[in-house]
Amino acid sequence: MSKFQTPRGTRDFLPRDMVRREYIFRVIKSVFERFGFAPLETPAFEDWKLLSRKGSGGDEIKDEIYYFRDKSKRELGLRFDLTVPLARVVANNPQLPKPFKRYQIGRVWRYDRPQAGRFREFWQADADVIGSASMAAEAECIAVFITCLRELGFRDFEVRLNNRKLLNGMIEVVDVDKKKAPAVFRALDKLEKRGEEEVKKELKRAGVKPKQIETLMKMIKMSGKPEGIIRKARKMLEGFSEAEEGLKELEEIVNLSKSYGTAERIIIDFSLVRGLDYYTGPVFEIFVKAEKEIGSVAGGGRYDNLIELYRGTPTSATGGSFGIERIYEIMFAENMFKGIPSSKTRVFVAAARDEPRLKKAAMETVQKLRKEGIPAETDLMGRKLKQCLDYADRLDIPYMVIIGEKELRSDRLTLRDMKKREQKIVVFERVLKELKK
Amino acid sequence: MSKFQTPRGTRDFLPRDMVRREYIFRVIKSVFERFGFAPLETPAFEDWKLLSRKGSGGDEIKDEIYYFRDKSKRELGLRFDLTVPLARVVANNPQLPKPFKRYQIGRVWRYDRPQAGRFREFWQADADVIGSASMAAEAECIAVFITCLRELGFRDFEVRLNNRKLLNGMIEVVDVDKKKAPAVFRALDKLEKRGEEEVKKELKRAGVKPKQIETLMKMIKMSGKPEGIIRKARKMLEGFSEAEEGLKELEEIVNLSKSYGTAERIIIDFSLVRGLDYYTGPVFEIFVKAEKEIGSVAGGGRYDNLIELYRGTPTSATGGSFGIERIYEIMFAENMFKGIPSSKTRVFVAAARDEPRLKKAAMETVQKLRKEGIPAETDLMGRKLKQCLDYADRLDIPYMVIIGEKELRSDRLTLRDMKKREQKIVVFERVLKELKK
Repeated sequence: MSKFQTPRGTRDFLPRDMVRREYIFRVIKSVFERFGFAPLETPAFEDWKLLSRKGSGGDEIKDEIYYFRDKSKRELGLRFDLTVPLARVVANNPQLPKPFKRYQIGRVWRYDRPQAGRFREFWQADADVIGSASMAAEAECIAVFITCLRELGFRDFEVRLNNRKLLNGMIEVVDVDKKKAPAVFRALDKLEKRGEEEVKKELKRAGVKPKQIETLMKMIKMSGKPEGIIRKARKMLEGFSEAEEGLKELEEIVNLSKSYGTAERIIIDFSLVRGLDYYTGPVFEIFVKAEKEIGSVAGGGRYDNLIELYRGTPTSATGGSFGIERIYEIMFAENMFKGIPSSKTRVFVAAARDEPRLKKAAMETVQKLRKEGIPAETDLMGRKLKQCLDYADRLDIPYMVIIGEKELRSDRLTLRDMKKREQKIVVFERVLKELKK
Repeated sequence: MSKFQTPRGTRDFLPRDMVRREYIFRVIKSVFERFGFAPLETPAFEDWKLLSRKGSGGDEIKDEIYYFRDKSKRELGLRFDLTVPLARVVANNPQLPKPFKRYQIGRVWRYDRPQAGRFREFWQADADVIGSASMAAEAECIAVFITCLRELGFRDFEVRLNNRKLLNGMIEVVDVDKKKAPAVFRALDKLEKRGEEEVKKELKRAGVKPKQIETLMKMIKMSGKPEGIIRKARKMLEGFSEAEEGLKELEEIVNLSKSYGTAERIIIDFSLVRGLDYYTGPVFEIFVKAEKEIGSVAGGGRYDNLIELYRGTPTSATGGSFGIERIYEIMFAENMFKGIPSSKTRVFVAAARDEPRLKKAAMETVQKLRKEGIPAETDLMGRKLKQCLDYADRLDIPYMVIIGEKELRSDRLTLRDMKKREQKIVVFERVLKELKK
């Protein structure tokens, strides 16, 4: 009889994984809070009409949501990101002081085809600034994501920045009907994954003429350090007001980022689109250069229409999202978890022999250690010392305290360093001092 | 046009709630880890066959699960507890060293009728010991839950303890067919909620005779301090081997709890059943006495057959679960959150006037503070000082740093205590010292 497996595209995380995942969450959470973002939590599932609404996930996402009905036939779906729920919360709570700087770390679900590094249940960590139309909000979001990466130990990464207004402007420049914009963006979004030829084919299918495709491709292939690119683009897009506004916004973000010490990480990349329909202004994506690959680990952008779409007061909004699985994967491959102990337990307290008095002393000692804040374990299996040593070894518990008759008589404890395989007989306070190191 | 609401029985948690909820999670997590429990994470949904299996949730729970199919017609359900997923993980991972002491804090879903304090999406915090048949595992679990409650600030609570083996024994004593045991347990489980008359009616419907009902009711109404109850029960149940074994186990738990300093919290209560079908041995529930009510905040028990039922090697298992919503509710009503600041941000850094040089200095100062580990915010809205003060006030941010021309010239900062409404001009290091307090 085969065993029950986790549903396709989902995973269990055993303690060794969890210790590393929690390290990532802890660092990100601490940075988010240091930047003044406050925690929010929303339900795992939402009204299906909200999730599938045009402008939320758009048509594309609709096929990728887990849909179900509850027993009263309400249509529901598992959340596919943390931005749509945030916009709903803001629409429903106009009393929230602005800017509403919120973070949320949690799981989301997409009915994607599972493949290496892609799952149907995965974790995101989002930080958003709600209520500010200023590019200071963008600079702040970019800075918070950069700081997270630095504190996680990443050294080599860049922020690619673009603006939906610029992309709109380019569509104007090549004189494509504005109604075709979503289809054009979806095609351009595939440049990196599918290559130039595929994109051209898709643009053609969307009704864009060859001449237009050529100019468009030339423009979106521009990328590089902000000053140069912005200067070139300004000439190219002169007279197209939306594009000019978009350029001005990018310039502002770069300037503000200087005060944050993050400007040197920014690259302007006109091919950056970001798939979701809800973006209205600047969009960004952060790429990490690891030994084996270059991968996007975070992305976001401005979505000034979403809260109004959910029947709230028109409200500016911008923010971004970390993909936790991608970060984990790269950190694992690059051996970036090496300093993190695989067990949180510091010490195992064992009786030298299987004797009630010694067992009792071990249990009382473990309780004393716990009261002092030391993560500690003792035998719960009626095991002999040898088996306790094996267990502590397998779990990478760094210390062992052993209590025998001699120790009991002299009111001392044997403290064993499991790695060095050395032991000494000391008083409780010495044990405590050593374990607190 | 009405707004999109959270689905029935689910909630958003705004930052002020979250700060308090996270405090609860942090305390529980820290105690779990101090007792040597390691974190585990499992998917939000599981194979429907696993969840609805006889012996998992049993027939009763089947109507209460969120059921859905994915696009490949796989039958899935949202998890209704954290025990069933744990048992599946253990069945699938026989390599895990035993005892496997795991904790898991997360949301679960039940399609219950929503009512005061009951939700369809709610959080549990579980700690379980897998692989130990010894009552030391029970004593450890009871101690970890008691320690959590103490560290959360609870003073008045008791652990009610019973044993399914005893309940089985009682059924033998009154000579009811063993096959009727699940129905009898379900009836008895309703004693506290529905009262004695309802329970009697249900027992009658289950085919238990009036005479049997009378004896049964007399037995299950026994409760009190362990020594007395166990002595009485021993006489009553003499010769019924399963009941005698159950009594012996309770005695062991009480004795072991003495080393933990938790024995005085234990009350034996023969009416305690716990609804779920999977329990096989000792069961417990923790009741908190608050001003307005007495409520159960945690419960658990031994489930030695569950892992085998999921096609794993036969493995002993015991553990328990905190209901987070109940704990929150009581702590809120009893004003137990009073020491917790509602904002994590320590300081808002503002420019005295709307001037680029001052704004820039504010932004650089906020970055310096963040680098020192101080949660800090600055203006992202292009606001004047007055509005920044209002914002800091509304968010309960305790300090404000103000930078004007004078401060810039003298390389000093104005530090304002928002509560005392006092301010002084000091150097950066002084600000830092004050904020780190």
